[in-house]
Amino acid sequence: MTISRRHFSHLAAASTAALAAAASTARAQGSGGNPSVKWRLTSSYPKSLDTLYGAGPSLAKIVGEMTDGKFQIDSFAGGEIVPGLQVLDAVGNGTVECGQSYAGYYIGKNPAFVFDGSLPFGMTPRQHYAWYTFGGGKALIDELYDSSGVISINMGNTNGQMFGWFRKELKTVDDLKGIKMRVAGFGGKVMAKLGVIPQQIAGGDIYPALEKGTMDAVEWVGPYDDEKLGFHKVAKYYYLPGVLELEANNGFYINKAAWAALPPHYQAILRSACAATLLEMMASYDAKNAKAVGSLVAKGTQISVLPPEIIKALRKALEEVLDEEAAKSDQFKRILASWRPFRNEQHRWFSLADARTEMAVYTQSQ
Amino acid sequence: MTISRRHFSHLAAASTAALAAAASTARAQGSGGNPSVKWRLTSSYPKSLDTLYGAGPSLAKIVGEMTDGKFQIDSFAGGEIVPGLQVLDAVGNGTVECGQSYAGYYIGKNPAFVFDGSLPFGMTPRQHYAWYTFGGGKALIDELYDSSGVISINMGNTNGQMFGWFRKELKTVDDLKGIKMRVAGFGGKVMAKLGVIPQQIAGGDIYPALEKGTMDAVEWVGPYDDEKLGFHKVAKYYYLPGVLELEANNGFYINKAAWAALPPHYQAILRSACAATLLEMMASYDAKNAKAVGSLVAKGTQISVLPPEIIKALRKALEEVLDEEAAKSDQFKRILASWRPFRNEQHRWFSLADARTEMAVYTQSQ
Repeated sequence: MTISRRHFSHLAAASTAALAAAASTARAQGSGGNPSVKWRLTSSYPKSLDTLYGAGPSLAKIVGEMTDGKFQIDSFAGGEIVPGLQVLDAVGNGTVECGQSYAGYYIGKNPAFVFDGSLPFGMTPRQHYAWYTFGGGKALIDELYDSSGVISINMGNTNGQMFGWFRKELKTVDDLKGIKMRVAGFGGKVMAKLGVIPQQIAGGDIYPALEKGTMDAVEWVGPYDDEKLGFHKVAKYYYLPGVLELEANNGFYINKAAWAALPPHYQAILRSACAATLLEMMASYDAKNAKAVGSLVAKGTQISVLPPEIIKALRKALEEVLDEEAAKSDQFKRILASWRPFRNEQHRWFSLADARTEMAVYTQSQ
Repeated sequence: MTISRRHFSHLAAASTAALAAAASTARAQGSGGNPSVKWRLTSSYPKSLDTLYGAGPSLAKIVGEMTDGKFQIDSFAGGEIVPGLQVLDAVGNGTVECGQSYAGYYIGKNPAFVFDGSLPFGMTPRQHYAWYTFGGGKALIDELYDSSGVISINMGNTNGQMFGWFRKELKTVDDLKGIKMRVAGFGGKVMAKLGVIPQQIAGGDIYPALEKGTMDAVEWVGPYDDEKLGFHKVAKYYYLPGVLELEANNGFYINKAAWAALPPHYQAILRSACAATLLEMMASYDAKNAKAVGSLVAKGTQISVLPPEIIKALRKALEEVLDEEAAKSDQFKRILASWRPFRNEQHRWFSLADARTEMAVYTQSQ
């Protein structure tokens, strides 16, 4: 996933001084009641990606309902205040009080952010939240955001994604060599090991590049979002399984000073509101993707399955990339030491239980 | 799932008059602030089933945090106020303001409650919440509870369960004939079609029945809860896949009059608090079951896989049971008409996407 950078800031950024003043107003109204607080939320997404962007307005609505309208959050799309990939900085430096984004966008700043977003051959949403809540993940992730001046709360997830759109069929690992593919972050590092030339281009620029043939393939999200961007018109093969992203966790980022200035019951309200938006986004993607995949097939898309040889090579590449990053960063190494055994244990359990049950049930549903 | 009935009421039930008085007190404190409200929550579970029972105290903690301690909920285990299987009645008639339970316990009252709990060959938690939130499910489920004087909000889920513990190996469908098995609700109706004699006995009575040989098999929850009840000591074969229960959704039941008396922002706070407890329970079960299954294997449990012939026969039986119930009840028929096509669409999508991806990833993890 990434977002269009074509819209640039056109609204004045709130100064950190103004932010501090607003925070002290909130404090001054004392505990026990519901003080008036007004925040701006900057999103990584354009409004057209309604499921991702929609989590911001949903959160604002829920928080408003829980505070009798006293805690107001105004949502802005990527580019309206700051570009979509600068949400972490904008929240950390107090340009805005809060934002919504995907941690995978910040692996250039620190590769360890990938553990809060999604990893190839990684965890599903449920496995991720099991690690986060009961496997020691939260403390490690909090430390990661703390150094950027941000508190992050999980607020959304795309669920499992597709492997991507290709203009040509993939038969062997060699077919990947030299392919120019739009693929975000860690997925790009893994694909590069197999000879793919990863491209980091904005959402709105992908379609023309595929059409002109200057790009050969794209990984974006899943049927509902992909159909909106029109990839089925210029690439025939829609590959699965989506081993590059079994999820994409989204975070609600809060400026540390703004968070500290909130009364404790408002902090608790934000935490629960994020749980509600997270469940809503997951339900929304599952409902929409199940319909959109049928629509794409009706329009001529060829659903295709990756050869096992390619999946095996990708898995090997992923583990190599993880070890390389761990050798470069102590923080990455510490998180990996918690994440990897937890992932392996979850994979063993799900291969016996939920995933096996699902396949047994779906086979009977055909 | 079911709970021990051995503990009976020993606390005086609050009169509905007292309930109405408390509600009007809450109203009198006006809107805008956080009025003092004190509720009692009765659970279907004993405290020893810490993950299921624990959702009540978790909810109380979160609601307390969001209201500066003004909205207090005291949790009681099954049997402390009313027996565990009478939560729906106790909340509906105002004995208590709220409760936590599993809709599958009430299919004797109305078989349609099964759609809010779990169904053999049904939906996973994600699919269930997609149907509930975006597939028309909520309106149908609300109507179901409304006739019992209750508002229900989803507050927990066990995730996928195991098929069950058997003293003897299952090789063909004939091996099921005459087996006495503790299996709850709809699973019992389906198993009965294959000759099983379903038993509805309480949790605490299962172990002695298996030990004495007066019962042959039991379906309960999953490794973490099952290990606590000691089934591995008296039944060797632990069967999967868990096609009888891909989930078990738990509801937070609220008396309609008590709900109507709450200020709207307290209603919103309860909704989001339930989202938080739901995510917590799911994460907790995944973290705990992944460890417990290893512990059971180390103790000599034989993880066994159902023959495809039995799975196929069970699926056929389920669809027959659904059609039979629909012929008996217009309400069941209306819900089934929404639920079944949504389930089928979700199964098609997950068999292409998330479940297929998971199996591809787990195969590489072995």
